[in-house]
Amino acid sequence: MKLKRTIIFFAALLAVQTCLAQPAIIEDFKPSTLNQPGQMYPQVNSQGYARFRIVAPYADSVKASLGLGGRGGTKLTKTGDSTWMGTTDGPMDEGFHYYHLNLAGGVFNDPGTLNFYGSTRWESGIEIPAHDEDFYALKNVPHGNVQQVLFPSKSTGTSRRAFVYTPPGYEKDKTKNYPVLYLQHGWGEDENAWANQGHANLIMDNLIAAGKIKPFLIVMTYGMTNELKWGHLKEFKVDAFQTVLVDELIPYVDTKFRTIADVAHRAMAGLSMGGFETHSITLSKPGVFSYYGLLSGGIYTTEELKDKIKPKLIFISCGSRESPGVIKDAASKLKEAGFNVVYYVSENTAHEFQTWRRSLHELAPLLFTN
Amino acid sequence: MKLKRTIIFFAALLAVQTCLAQPAIIEDFKPSTLNQPGQMYPQVNSQGYARFRIVAPYADSVKASLGLGGRGGTKLTKTGDSTWMGTTDGPMDEGFHYYHLNLAGGVFNDPGTLNFYGSTRWESGIEIPAHDEDFYALKNVPHGNVQQVLFPSKSTGTSRRAFVYTPPGYEKDKTKNYPVLYLQHGWGEDENAWANQGHANLIMDNLIAAGKIKPFLIVMTYGMTNELKWGHLKEFKVDAFQTVLVDELIPYVDTKFRTIADVAHRAMAGLSMGGFETHSITLSKPGVFSYYGLLSGGIYTTEELKDKIKPKLIFISCGSRESPGVIKDAASKLKEAGFNVVYYVSENTAHEFQTWRRSLHELAPLLFTN
Repeated sequence: MKLKRTIIFFAALLAVQTCLAQPAIIEDFKPSTLNQPGQMYPQVNSQGYARFRIVAPYADSVKASLGLGGRGGTKLTKTGDSTWMGTTDGPMDEGFHYYHLNLAGGVFNDPGTLNFYGSTRWESGIEIPAHDEDFYALKNVPHGNVQQVLFPSKSTGTSRRAFVYTPPGYEKDKTKNYPVLYLQHGWGEDENAWANQGHANLIMDNLIAAGKIKPFLIVMTYGMTNELKWGHLKEFKVDAFQTVLVDELIPYVDTKFRTIADVAHRAMAGLSMGGFETHSITLSKPGVFSYYGLLSGGIYTTEELKDKIKPKLIFISCGSRESPGVIKDAASKLKEAGFNVVYYVSENTAHEFQTWRRSLHELAPLLFTN
Repeated sequence: MKLKRTIIFFAALLAVQTCLAQPAIIEDFKPSTLNQPGQMYPQVNSQGYARFRIVAPYADSVKASLGLGGRGGTKLTKTGDSTWMGTTDGPMDEGFHYYHLNLAGGVFNDPGTLNFYGSTRWESGIEIPAHDEDFYALKNVPHGNVQQVLFPSKSTGTSRRAFVYTPPGYEKDKTKNYPVLYLQHGWGEDENAWANQGHANLIMDNLIAAGKIKPFLIVMTYGMTNELKWGHLKEFKVDAFQTVLVDELIPYVDTKFRTIADVAHRAMAGLSMGGFETHSITLSKPGVFSYYGLLSGGIYTTEELKDKIKPKLIFISCGSRESPGVIKDAASKLKEAGFNVVYYVSENTAHEFQTWRRSLHELAPLLFTN
């Protein structure tokens, strides 16, 4: 009887272990492409596992905030040589992830990685190789430039920064003018995000080199003109940013760059909070943009759009780990109501930059075509 | 007798203390201008003291590497609320300083500050207000742009990054061409340094707005094409970088930007290792540049320059805490030999960016004028 129970117990244990077990980790780890020059850690393997190594011999404990959802990150363990090492408890989603370290009771960045502004702080970043990474790879094709501009803003009393992507060839034909996409980052990020972790410039360079799109400019500026705490998105007042964007930045760009300065050749899109901003501003200023893009940033309803100038395109997207049903449903209702709508779901990604890189890659060929 | 000795002892102690004492610290500390958004620490006061505050309740000790020369930085002490605080043991030199934290036996950045690439890693940075900070302040004047360009480099088989400063008005008169300064960073830094911690773009914007210089372009790229360890500068081979600069970047810039593409309108300058590079390349490629600038980066001798095309200007500079005698001596010998030479010594600064900001501010008005 006791033996039988023991056998049943171990059989059950084996079944549970088999069920929970991740595939065996393949030991082909390489330094993440976002490491600081010469830094060997963090590393990633071909399955998407991330491995960390931190030198902190006198730390009480070290944790990397990256790990499977809800499991609270990866606890590192001390090795013989006084460093701490740890590997995520499963493969990470493809693409870019922010993370940080917890050690000695504080929050610090991993000294091995470059830093990326997210969650209102410069965080560590890691890149998990993706099956489709070719579309944002730095390749031997003609490259556009990313220009930092400092534009005067009377409404805020400041010189504000924007980045402007100009496509390859922009400097050549000095009589040619271009459409413009105004592209916004998410909550806690800033105007660096799209050209840095987003690779917006490389996505454009590659699409242009492949002849898949007609060149246009992309303008990226800071969308958080007032203080906003996490979880309080609904309290966000977009008015101050709308003034900066519509009354100050657009006229500045139209003066300083060779744009086609009309509504038919102006698009706005944004990710997450930048989607909320796009939603608000396109609805309250319907004569400014013709193409609207919400990337993990909500939807439009037919109710909101009635009695407004009809946009040439509505693009809505999200990751498959977000709420793709909501996107599909909204798209079908808008289509029924006669809107030109395209929806896109990024497979096996969440509310992260791989979703938005892919979304831009899908959106760009649709812009300024009708 | 005992009383007398005691009095003498205390008098002597008082004298020693008075002698060593720094001026009383004025409690007007404010967050450094290089802090991350919303971060209150580190702080600086009107005397140039820096004060640090780090949340790390379980750290064994916390040290900030910033402190008076040779004294090994600032040890922080634990306060009641489990944070660590500390103030430098004296005023810091005016301007920008790199630093990092030592805690738990490892090296981490201060989570309060922005990061700057120096010493081949992204370091914390702090800005000590300077009496002359107006010349690199962000002011309400027309601003030039800083463009990221990715240029093809056959010799290294890579797409390489450069930043190009174009002055305000560059986009307006499409027939106007400009001279170009090629400006190099120091050892352990990269192409970000001059426009980031160096404020080269703001220095130019302000000089142009004040009518003190004629506008020109500045091109900044990465000068460390091969591995180089600290203390091995003499082993550095400049050849690989010379090929990238002279055979690849200059032709690219002359094609993509409206430059005056001749030797009379091309200058090269660099700080520290960038000065060594300038020295080497101007001597081995005498038909490429007309204006030479070494900023804390050595000197030219008359011996080196004989039988070469005479440069239109030699500019040599350093901080007063470096070796100003060497600079002055070299300048007087070059002057005697008939060269157009200008030397500049930055008062009360060392081998740091305030010296180089000031040096660029002195150099710029001299360029392309003869």
